[in-house]
Amino acid sequence: MDSAADTPLTRWEQRTEVPLFWCSLLFLAGYTVRVLATGVDMIWRNLAFVLMLLMWLLFAADYVVRLRLSGQRLPRFLRTHWLDALVLILPLLRPLRLVKVYTAVQRRRDRARLSLYARVIAYAGLTAVLLGFSGALAVYHQERSAPGASIRTFGDAVWWVCETLTTVGYGDVTPVTPMGRVIAVGLMICGLALLGAVTGSFSSWLLQVFTREDEKWPPEDDGRRPPGATS
Amino acid sequence: MDSAADTPLTRWEQRTEVPLFWCSLLFLAGYTVRVLATGVDMIWRNLAFVLMLLMWLLFAADYVVRLRLSGQRLPRFLRTHWLDALVLILPLLRPLRLVKVYTAVQRRRDRARLSLYARVIAYAGLTAVLLGFSGALAVYHQERSAPGASIRTFGDAVWWVCETLTTVGYGDVTPVTPMGRVIAVGLMICGLALLGAVTGSFSSWLLQVFTREDEKWPPEDDGRRPPGATS
Amino acid sequence: MDSAADTPLTRWEQRTEVPLFWCSLLFLAGYTVRVLATGVDMIWRNLAFVLMLLMWLLFAADYVVRLRLSGQRLPRFLRTHWLDALVLILPLLRPLRLVKVYTAVQRRRDRARLSLYARVIAYAGLTAVLLGFSGALAVYHQERSAPGASIRTFGDAVWWVCETLTTVGYGDVTPVTPMGRVIAVGLMICGLALLGAVTGSFSSWLLQVFTREDEKWPPEDDGRRPPGATS
Amino acid sequence: MDSAADTPLTRWEQRTEVPLFWCSLLFLAGYTVRVLATGVDMIWRNLAFVLMLLMWLLFAADYVVRLRLSGQRLPRFLRTHWLDALVLILPLLRPLRLVKVYTAVQRRRDRARLSLYARVIAYAGLTAVLLGFSGALAVYHQERSAPGASIRTFGDAVWWVCETLTTVGYGDVTPVTPMGRVIAVGLMICGLALLGAVTGSFSSWLLQVFTREDEKWPPEDDGRRPPGATS
Repeated sequence: MDSAADTPLTRWEQRTEVPLFWCSLLFLAGYTVRVLATGVDMIWRNLAFVLMLLMWLLFAADYVVRLRLSGQRLPRFLRTHWLDALVLILPLLRPLRLVKVYTAVQRRRDRARLSLYARVIAYAGLTAVLLGFSGALAVYHQERSAPGASIRTFGDAVWWVCETLTTVGYGDVTPVTPMGRVIAVGLMICGLALLGAVTGSFSSWLLQVFTREDEKWPPEDDGRRPPGATS
Repeated sequence: MDSAADTPLTRWEQRTEVPLFWCSLLFLAGYTVRVLATGVDMIWRNLAFVLMLLMWLLFAADYVVRLRLSGQRLPRFLRTHWLDALVLILPLLRPLRLVKVYTAVQRRRDRARLSLYARVIAYAGLTAVLLGFSGALAVYHQERSAPGASIRTFGDAVWWVCETLTTVGYGDVTPVTPMGRVIAVGLMICGLALLGAVTGSFSSWLLQVFTREDEKWPPEDDGRRPPGATS
Repeated sequence: MDSAADTPLTRWEQRTEVPLFWCSLLFLAGYTVRVLATGVDMIWRNLAFVLMLLMWLLFAADYVVRLRLSGQRLPRFLRTHWLDALVLILPLLRPLRLVKVYTAVQRRRDRARLSLYARVIAYAGLTAVLLGFSGALAVYHQERSAPGASIRTFGDAVWWVCETLTTVGYGDVTPVTPMGRVIAVGLMICGLALLGAVTGSFSSWLLQVFTREDEKWPPEDDGRRPPGATS
Repeated sequence: MDSAADTPLTRWEQRTEVPLFWCSLLFLAGYTVRVLATGVDMIWRNLAFVLMLLMWLLFAADYVVRLRLSGQRLPRFLRTHWLDALVLILPLLRPLRLVKVYTAVQRRRDRARLSLYARVIAYAGLTAVLLGFSGALAVYHQERSAPGASIRTFGDAVWWVCETLTTVGYGDVTPVTPMGRVIAVGLMICGLALLGAVTGSFSSWLLQVFTREDEKWPPEDDGRRPPGATS
């Protein structure tokens, strides 16, 4: 267990990872209320804003604590934890840290119950769904009041996210504002890589299933199974 | 043969798999008549509806029998057989079970005659064709009477499915109703993974063909040289 | 050399493969003249038609000779050589046989000079270019006189083929006739698989280049090179 | 070290690679000023032109020196260095040589600090960004004054490049001039292969991360068990 030594920093990270994940979901919930609850009383939107602010302060506090515990100086810590810094500035990207949450949760149970490919599909798919939902909210937020916009309802934004992440790209609804397009490009880069991982894993899993069938065959049980044949 | 033990459940599944696959094709045929036969006598559409209902009752009976034979309680059975439950609610997704049918059919013949990649291509391609056909029917069913729809004939729906599954996505015809878009997203998720498997397998097969040529070369016949080069 | 035994059939195939490939290029040239040379004298288009007919008769004769030499009955020969039969009916698909031509040419030289990935990229890329050119001709042939067509010049057709094969699919030009769409679907299925092979091989080649750099490193020359790291 | 023998040519290439890379960035900067600085004083555009010319003369001189040092005749040198010749004619493609720069830089440091996949992602991603920027400039240069063009600002061109390289292809902005389309096709071919490498590497990296977690598991610590499971 050298690679995951029992330092104060790793202990802190293992303990806070799951609560912070719930906090990031609360942040997302607050943002959802801010963006979608336009018709309701102003107080709800203000409550949502306070919730978002509180969550963000928690994230910032966590970053500072981890900086202290690491015993590193700020520039070096920024370099080695640049993804965490990015996620602090843009909290909607927090789902990208899901892989660490997964590890933290897994450590408490006794054994992984899903196969390798199933776990990659589950992780990448779930991350893509959370990022896609955040992206739909953010793009809808930018576009809904723009003149000449084609994304006018939240349903349009979700439909746009789906056709973008699968790279189908009909173009019936597209962002037209500069900010909406910047969010769109970010979503493409993050989401396509994740969905590529889902597709690739599914493809590998299918090949594995068919290879195992060959191996289960009663006749010609020749010891040397073709493990390379899967790849 | 531990993994496929000779329990009553596995015996039942092996025996019913192929007949149930034909039933699902009948269900699809009934749905096709319901959707496409708009100009003919009403009696044909009613007959098709009765056929669909009968087939669905068969699927439900099969699920109940398997629940009993498994000796598990309902919540646990639902969890381990969630894909079967989904397929029971949305019978048009039945082609996804084709891989089990393939195994059942294969067991009766003496030997697989196709190579690994050819079988993955055949399985994933066939599943994609069946799902695509069902999706074209379902989307056409939703869209044909919608105001402002661009999918107005069944030919348009098939063309839309082809450009969607290949991720080309021209956008000349697109679903506009909420229900049509939900079906479209489902089709993208299922279909893209399957077509990714087809493309990946074809690519691997091509690499294998070219690698074998290297190995067949008369001079420097050093048997097992580049096995890693395939991957 | 059991797999490529020295039967009359294999000798015939080795001798005729390259001449027939040139014939298929002549066929394509004739089709190009038929489709594109609309403004010139009628005699050229008729000459092109005669050339195409002659080439097609050669293809048919070759198929009959191979049927005879194989000593198989027609139904069985059709089953084992279905791709050849398809290519006989649709001679524009002939480039798909390029892999055999490649093997035939290679056998005469003393050694393959390109690496595995370079050969797959060259083969799949060249086939995709030939198929794409044929597809552009065929779609242009169908679409140019259709009412409401967006593919009106041959340049449009080539642009459409490029955006289709790369799955970009802007949708600024799309086929609108049923026959044009059927050709488009065929082109998508053949072309995407080929371009998937090109992309996959390029990706594997890049990984290989970077892995080799690791191995060339002077310090820490630890015998166990990571062969699994490539895949 | 046979493959990289210490000839005058390799010494020249190792020494000039990095300076020439900076020159190509200067060339790109000059081109950027030429294309984008339309409102400013004419003198800046002329200065940019002189800068581009100077850089190009440097590239040409480098090619001639390398031809001399290689001791090969021109036709043979052209054949073995065709990519360099192409890059000399179209200097905007220079980023494609980045892999050599990377090697040259790496040799001076003591050790690669990034993992295999991270390096491929960094290399292919950076090359794609540079090519995409050059492509956006070139397409904007062609399209901005064309009648009926949909790419009218440089922002549109960048947005078009992003949706093209990710193969989303909404089609809200597309090139309409023949030259713009030729550049677009070149961009698709180069860019898609590079982004395919990025996606493939990310997918492989994710599988590797999840596989390592399995191996780190305390119970059943059987060292080298699933190395084939990654692929």
